[in-house]
Amino acid sequence: MKQYVIGVDFGTLSGRAVLVAIRDGAITASSVWEYAHGVMEQNLPSGKPLPPEWALHHPDDYLEVLEHTIPQLIQLAGVGASDIAAIGVDCTASTVLPVTKDGTPLCFLPEFANEPHAYIHLWKHHAAQSQADRMTDKALELGETWLSAYGGKVSCEGALPKLWQMLEEAPRVYAAAAYWMEAADWLVWRLCGNPMMSACCAGYKYLYCDGYPSEEYFSSLDARLARVIQDKCSLPIAPIYSKAGTMTEDMSHRLGLSPDTAVAVGMIDAHACVPSAGITGPGEMVMILGTSACLMTCGEAYHSVPGCYAVKDGILPGLWGYEGGQNSVGDLFAWMLRNCVPAHVQQAAREQGVSLHDYLSEMASRKKPGESGLLALDWFNGNRSTLMDSGLTGMILGLTLQTAPEDIYRALAEAAAFGARRIIDSFREQGLRVNKLLITGGISQKNSMMMQIYADVLNIPVRVLPSSHGSALGSAIAAATAAGCYGSVGDAIEHMAAKEEKVYIPKPENNKIYGRLYPLYAKLYRLYGQEKNSVMKALLSIKRGETQHTE
Amino acid sequence: MKQYVIGVDFGTLSGRAVLVAIRDGAITASSVWEYAHGVMEQNLPSGKPLPPEWALHHPDDYLEVLEHTIPQLIQLAGVGASDIAAIGVDCTASTVLPVTKDGTPLCFLPEFANEPHAYIHLWKHHAAQSQADRMTDKALELGETWLSAYGGKVSCEGALPKLWQMLEEAPRVYAAAAYWMEAADWLVWRLCGNPMMSACCAGYKYLYCDGYPSEEYFSSLDARLARVIQDKCSLPIAPIYSKAGTMTEDMSHRLGLSPDTAVAVGMIDAHACVPSAGITGPGEMVMILGTSACLMTCGEAYHSVPGCYAVKDGILPGLWGYEGGQNSVGDLFAWMLRNCVPAHVQQAAREQGVSLHDYLSEMASRKKPGESGLLALDWFNGNRSTLMDSGLTGMILGLTLQTAPEDIYRALAEAAAFGARRIIDSFREQGLRVNKLLITGGISQKNSMMMQIYADVLNIPVRVLPSSHGSALGSAIAAATAAGCYGSVGDAIEHMAAKEEKVYIPKPENNKIYGRLYPLYAKLYRLYGQEKNSVMKALLSIKRGETQHTE
Repeated sequence: MKQYVIGVDFGTLSGRAVLVAIRDGAITASSVWEYAHGVMEQNLPSGKPLPPEWALHHPDDYLEVLEHTIPQLIQLAGVGASDIAAIGVDCTASTVLPVTKDGTPLCFLPEFANEPHAYIHLWKHHAAQSQADRMTDKALELGETWLSAYGGKVSCEGALPKLWQMLEEAPRVYAAAAYWMEAADWLVWRLCGNPMMSACCAGYKYLYCDGYPSEEYFSSLDARLARVIQDKCSLPIAPIYSKAGTMTEDMSHRLGLSPDTAVAVGMIDAHACVPSAGITGPGEMVMILGTSACLMTCGEAYHSVPGCYAVKDGILPGLWGYEGGQNSVGDLFAWMLRNCVPAHVQQAAREQGVSLHDYLSEMASRKKPGESGLLALDWFNGNRSTLMDSGLTGMILGLTLQTAPEDIYRALAEAAAFGARRIIDSFREQGLRVNKLLITGGISQKNSMMMQIYADVLNIPVRVLPSSHGSALGSAIAAATAAGCYGSVGDAIEHMAAKEEKVYIPKPENNKIYGRLYPLYAKLYRLYGQEKNSVMKALLSIKRGETQHTE
Repeated sequence: MKQYVIGVDFGTLSGRAVLVAIRDGAITASSVWEYAHGVMEQNLPSGKPLPPEWALHHPDDYLEVLEHTIPQLIQLAGVGASDIAAIGVDCTASTVLPVTKDGTPLCFLPEFANEPHAYIHLWKHHAAQSQADRMTDKALELGETWLSAYGGKVSCEGALPKLWQMLEEAPRVYAAAAYWMEAADWLVWRLCGNPMMSACCAGYKYLYCDGYPSEEYFSSLDARLARVIQDKCSLPIAPIYSKAGTMTEDMSHRLGLSPDTAVAVGMIDAHACVPSAGITGPGEMVMILGTSACLMTCGEAYHSVPGCYAVKDGILPGLWGYEGGQNSVGDLFAWMLRNCVPAHVQQAAREQGVSLHDYLSEMASRKKPGESGLLALDWFNGNRSTLMDSGLTGMILGLTLQTAPEDIYRALAEAAAFGARRIIDSFREQGLRVNKLLITGGISQKNSMMMQIYADVLNIPVRVLPSSHGSALGSAIAAATAAGCYGSVGDAIEHMAAKEEKVYIPKPENNKIYGRLYPLYAKLYRLYGQEKNSVMKALLSIKRGETQHTE
């Protein structure tokens, strides 16, 4: 009887593999490999410059992750290839690439090696905003019913705006692509030789919602897009937690695994956190707090939640998977540390031998809610849920000559928690239950002040999960399910999910004050996020050099 | 024929004296002396702690300024006491102290040495806010006509709220005080032996407006205040630029001056800048930019300008003197440098061998108006004109993950200029002319980026005056007038005023963009400064620990 499965999580800067015991989900070994090319934002490997807002990955980096980490797992754990039942992978999304009919990335072909569009377009490639905007406008004009399942707007991070951008800017690459596919699906194809599309990716990133948008819709965008689904996205859709195939001879040889190793259908990295958080049904939410935030929950029925996605079978089989997000959480603090922390604070942190984050958190945690008089909007990188507006910006209100750096730090933390509350309120307003909250991701481990603020603002116990292997463990659970080690997804999750590490209980005295501050946040949210002629929108218009229009 | 006069300016941290040629206003020598006690905000000299918002001066420090600087002037210039025709003084205001019938500060008496209220209450002593608020409320209730000449609100920096605070908190000191007087007037009394009150101080700081507020008004505040004017403020009012007397034997001996030296009536420091700016009539404005800003102009007739003072004969004889102000300008940048400048910026400034201000100004001046997408409110220390509301706070809107420190620096500079424009617009809306703008004060010398922003935002050439001796030169001009060296104030100003150093011409392309940004500032100004249930007011209420009231 095989005792282990492997999960591999492909992130923004590195890939991480874990060897997991099927019986109880214990992580026996882990290995991380950084991408040699990192995120290509300025140049291609040839030195060719990239325009603003671009972000690419190199497919070689993903293959290197597999080839380095998996043999290392086996070596570290001292197990045999025959002990390993299955492998599952997850990846950031929509992280998409054009490939030939046999799955070769176009950037591997000499004629396209110097063509930016032939590389992997990373999730945070934001250069397809114009295409996304036009897709939204047209969908509104035509009354497309699927739009509400995607929060009422087409995101520039989705697969189809990026594909349209490629058509408009590099029609030669578009013509040469047999498939425009998610990196997760491409990796599964590499591993088992069977091309397919994960239902998770199709639903969340390709607007697949009981079928794709219509030919009429696509042709009204651009006549050349009329048959875009048949031409570029025609792979069969496979349910998650199912088996994609067994490993190819070639790949099993390269990775040191057995050719009978099952390969699970791929997942989006965030969604792979749901099984590792132990969620098996409705009423529970997992929030992943990293540079950005992702909030996921499931429901029995369909609800349209503003700025959030609803995808049938997208998170757990048989349920509607709901996903909302905030574009910047950890990034808020990274911005502050880079731009707003004075030398005397750095000095004080150094003298105490603690990190700047720890120092500022400790200073901020001495203050009471409301004490600084500050209130911030967390839109430093736009708002995803509930407004889906990348043009929104951040603000800090209540500044005085006495405002200290720790006050700003705390106000940013509170703004992130208020933003999460706004999303959860949206879920609830639409009839979804959120009775239990699990948080994972880097911030949940590193910043107990923030976790307490989330508990106090949301008025719900915050259960913190181990974060470092969340997605990879989820992929391992998918692998175990795909290999038939358990009778159901739910069984696999119940046995293999991560154990909660700590619980933060809401403090009534803090919750009471946040009960007064949150309506103020919500008021700013409406004023700047939803009012048509807001000062924020006018500033953006001036910044973009748009000429003045009469109001 | 005597050829020189002396002007002495008593500031917040030091006093400055200048020896000036009567013929052309040339500054022949200058001398600065720092106050030994500085600003007492935490403790009395005995160590006795002071409550929050307090700010006191020690009278000894003022006398030391005279005794150190004046002999030094004489020595530096190599002139004789007989060459000096007159002396004039100006001081911050309302900077007030209780004295005995012979002018002895109560804090000099052993029984009051440990009593905070017996010391000089500095202009920025802000602990009488409650008294100021009650004075405003009562004036509104009774329909007091003088209120509109003081911008519609009683300022906590004025003399009478501070006096009422003393009555409420230290009735024993109140009872012992024969006079509650401005430091400028007390210094003139020390110099010439004649007690009086400068019309400038009475008009701007004692609510003297064709008479004081009525006995009914005062007794409705507090029965003990019914005769407050007769009891504590009964000194005769003397016109500025007139002669208060000649120097006492004792003082002339201590300072090394001749007993026939004329002593001019005292002035407020800001108002002493008007003659040195060369202003002799309506249509011209002088703006003093330091930690805060003061804007002054004159008019033939009375106009009520929101949040600004209108005082007959308060700035120039025969004209109405108008004064508006902003509570923080230089303080905005001081706050930012203390709290928001990261180490890499400090490092870069060090490597270039320039100050942080110069480095950030240079970086900020490379950006175009509107380019950063930021807009700020300059209310970090409340708003004086046009709203007279110390509870207002600052804000920064438009923040993104790309916002750099120099963007914030520039946004603060622009906010200060927008705030000045709002005040000037108010003057104009009420029918006052502002056709010429002269700027003086530290910032005008040090920061050419800011001066260009003022020119671009205000769309008027900005004429910069030498700043370091502005008030002291004005006091010297008053001294020369008081001594009869010129036939009129105007003659004295025309001969002795400072020469303008540089002119900044508005750039049309920048003014065009500021023409779009300023209405956005004005919109925030209305929204947060004038709307009743604004988020800003609610934050303040929570910060102050006020219980929630139903709206």
